[in-house]
Amino acid sequence: MRIAVYPGSFDPITNGHLDIIERAAQLYDEVVVGVAENIRKSPLFSLKDRIRFAGNALAHLKNVRIESFNCLLVEFARRHDAHSIIKGLRAVSDFEHEFQMAQLNRKLDPSIETMFMMASPEYVYLSSSAVKEIAEYGGCLEGLVPPEVEEGLQKSFSR
Amino acid sequence: MRIAVYPGSFDPITNGHLDIIERAAQLYDEVVVGVAENIRKSPLFSLKDRIRFAGNALAHLKNVRIESFNCLLVEFARRHDAHSIIKGLRAVSDFEHEFQMAQLNRKLDPSIETMFMMASPEYVYLSSSAVKEIAEYGGCLEGLVPPEVEEGLQKSFSR
Amino acid sequence: MRIAVYPGSFDPITNGHLDIIERAAQLYDEVVVGVAENIRKSPLFSLKDRIRFAGNALAHLKNVRIESFNCLLVEFARRHDAHSIIKGLRAVSDFEHEFQMAQLNRKLDPSIETMFMMASPEYVYLSSSAVKEIAEYGGCLEGLVPPEVEEGLQKSFSR
Amino acid sequence: MRIAVYPGSFDPITNGHLDIIERAAQLYDEVVVGVAENIRKSPLFSLKDRIRFAGNALAHLKNVRIESFNCLLVEFARRHDAHSIIKGLRAVSDFEHEFQMAQLNRKLDPSIETMFMMASPEYVYLSSSAVKEIAEYGGCLEGLVPPEVEEGLQKSFSR
Amino acid sequence: MRIAVYPGSFDPITNGHLDIIERAAQLYDEVVVGVAENIRKSPLFSLKDRIRFAGNALAHLKNVRIESFNCLLVEFARRHDAHSIIKGLRAVSDFEHEFQMAQLNRKLDPSIETMFMMASPEYVYLSSSAVKEIAEYGGCLEGLVPPEVEEGLQKSFSR
Amino acid sequence: MRIAVYPGSFDPITNGHLDIIERAAQLYDEVVVGVAENIRKSPLFSLKDRIRFAGNALAHLKNVRIESFNCLLVEFARRHDAHSIIKGLRAVSDFEHEFQMAQLNRKLDPSIETMFMMASPEYVYLSSSAVKEIAEYGGCLEGLVPPEVEEGLQKSFSR
Repeated sequence: MRIAVYPGSFDPITNGHLDIIERAAQLYDEVVVGVAENIRKSPLFSLKDRIRFAGNALAHLKNVRIESFNCLLVEFARRHDAHSIIKGLRAVSDFEHEFQMAQLNRKLDPSIETMFMMASPEYVYLSSSAVKEIAEYGGCLEGLVPPEVEEGLQKSFSR
Repeated sequence: MRIAVYPGSFDPITNGHLDIIERAAQLYDEVVVGVAENIRKSPLFSLKDRIRFAGNALAHLKNVRIESFNCLLVEFARRHDAHSIIKGLRAVSDFEHEFQMAQLNRKLDPSIETMFMMASPEYVYLSSSAVKEIAEYGGCLEGLVPPEVEEGLQKSFSR
Repeated sequence: MRIAVYPGSFDPITNGHLDIIERAAQLYDEVVVGVAENIRKSPLFSLKDRIRFAGNALAHLKNVRIESFNCLLVEFARRHDAHSIIKGLRAVSDFEHEFQMAQLNRKLDPSIETMFMMASPEYVYLSSSAVKEIAEYGGCLEGLVPPEVEEGLQKSFSR
Repeated sequence: MRIAVYPGSFDPITNGHLDIIERAAQLYDEVVVGVAENIRKSPLFSLKDRIRFAGNALAHLKNVRIESFNCLLVEFARRHDAHSIIKGLRAVSDFEHEFQMAQLNRKLDPSIETMFMMASPEYVYLSSSAVKEIAEYGGCLEGLVPPEVEEGLQKSFSR
Repeated sequence: MRIAVYPGSFDPITNGHLDIIERAAQLYDEVVVGVAENIRKSPLFSLKDRIRFAGNALAHLKNVRIESFNCLLVEFARRHDAHSIIKGLRAVSDFEHEFQMAQLNRKLDPSIETMFMMASPEYVYLSSSAVKEIAEYGGCLEGLVPPEVEEGLQKSFSR
Repeated sequence: MRIAVYPGSFDPITNGHLDIIERAAQLYDEVVVGVAENIRKSPLFSLKDRIRFAGNALAHLKNVRIESFNCLLVEFARRHDAHSIIKGLRAVSDFEHEFQMAQLNRKLDPSIETMFMMASPEYVYLSSSAVKEIAEYGGCLEGLVPPEVEEGLQKSFSR
């Protein structure tokens, strides 16, 4: 069984995340999406909402599970018998930060590898924070997030 | 009529901004400097001050106007019949972020192009936050900001 | 009259180049595509072929002309009364090189500005040399180059 | 069966390559090392030597095979039923180039993913060309290449 | 007498900082480690603790002194008759930011040079904030920070 | 005695090189400019000319010497009792390549440090190859190279 974890804050999940997860699900027997409980910046959506959005958007993939975590990433991977951490790269600045995190994680547990996948060209510009900014000003979110997330964002900012 | 918008927080406007605006004003019939009302980090100067500093420093350019905005950038461009958004690039990290913003804006409105201009070598190191840091410690601001901004900064930090 | 030059070796022209030219043609009264006569690496296609491919692919744009050049780029711009040089950016490494060229060209002639446009996401990976490599191994070029260029490449590598 | 290809010119194979291959061999059922027959720059070592050096250095890994190839990389992957292409990243400039190659390969065959692994910190500075430059001037190669390659380099440059 | 300053927040000092300081201490007659009093983000450790950690970890180097500072960096250098500012570079994003700071400092005082040293490969991934994150989740800090800092971090997060 | 080497091909020396050397000469007791005998690309100027240009342009600096070298850089440094290698950085791509060279050189001889200095803003765009390209097309070289080099370039390309 080859298992990978795909960690993030998913505040909220975007079509860019879904694209990476769908592609990873073809290469691994199981992909565990890890939703970080604590985020440095206070999240727009509650942990429960972030998990629900991810879960509904990924319900069609039988080998993908959603779990929350509140520990070191290598510890989360170990608990799920995963030997790969999947990360999506969109830009050079992602690369730099992720490179440092990957080296640090290998120092903490050499048996777990970080595997990087490139974002699809049409999602290179997409991030959770960009999506929130567009929603804040009432811009169109079509094609950027799942429909349920679009509704959630609209509710959040119409309050 | 070829109109461009040049957006920013301008907290405060620096000689690096002025250099880009002066060069853009030669290529377009009209340049609308857009001062963002809401900034993520709380600004040092009020919107009114930020507009006044920009307005006085640019009074000699007849085809440049200052406007505040509080909406999506593409919406601001549309309101002013602008088909170009002007951005200044100083460094690779600017490039990355601006690349993503430009792609996102094209997705939101394909009729509006982001055009990038390179900072002049002598302003590559200059930013609003660097200027504030120097002022905070009483360093010399000559050649970095317009005289009126220099005074404003000194007043702010002597309080 | 606002005129821009768009220089390159175009060995051969790709759909990525066409995308930039079409977008530039909406912002300028005239775009002069400058095909460099001398290229450091010996070109696959003759100057005549490179001009023909570009000309046919751009025949539908009334305000675009194709010219060859064999001089400094700023000199080429001056001859065509252009005050803008258009460059497409795909990646950070493009940015670095182009930044240096733009600064150098401003030193040689401060009245001519380099304006950068971002490649569309679907063409970020595309380059003349990538296209030649695919053709060399008989890969599929659909959607990457105009049909006439596809034929030209196939002829070149079947010899 | 999860199979990955790891392509390169391996002129010659270094300890940096071996590190990536050993780590990849733990994540995949089989890793096929693809030695490119034709290289743009004329190689120092013949294809036969490059394959032999790789083969001997990897003989201890039962699920690693060495094959030469002279076709598009996606075609090579297909022939070996591989759905992953493994690439090692050392630096931002690698990232940029590899990003473009990965997007191009997905365009040519969307069923094949490029998976990136970070070089171990101690090999970040290491490349085949650096190794050849050190050998040319009689510098010490210990810890940089397998012993057999060290001998081969010394013979090459003592001629 | 050739004197250099090495500035930072050192919240807390890591083995990566110590590596740079030890190497710099071989090239200069004196190295003054400057601990910044005010940091934008509120520090985990008090100024007194940050100085004590640095002082104890560097006690074996006779030509290294620890000083706090609360002024412009060039002013701090002048006060200590230093003509060099030492900075460690780990990554491209460091480079960009440091490049801008170095140019700004030269503008403020052209007699003071910023000299950059590369992080050793084994510390490229290491930063004060990474260390704090690991400590927060009870991860192993061995080899990343001096023993006294390890204790300090454990105390901080067990509160 | 603190001695540094500053290596390069200097084909030809530019005002950007001179700026770095002059600044380094203030920080070291002696700076040895190392002119590489063998360059991968065939040089425009002979070794003799490259040394003469450098020597005449630097005659006013009493603690700067010009030497040619044809060995590993660390070997050249050792021969001159230098413990520092000086490198100028202009851009991110310089940084990447130089980072790898610096790590490799430390592996070859840990007692020799590479110290990086940032190019002055006005020379960030300047390189020997840019200068040759301008000369080839008869562009103006004022302020880019010493007068003697300007003459040498004009003679070269008028042949």
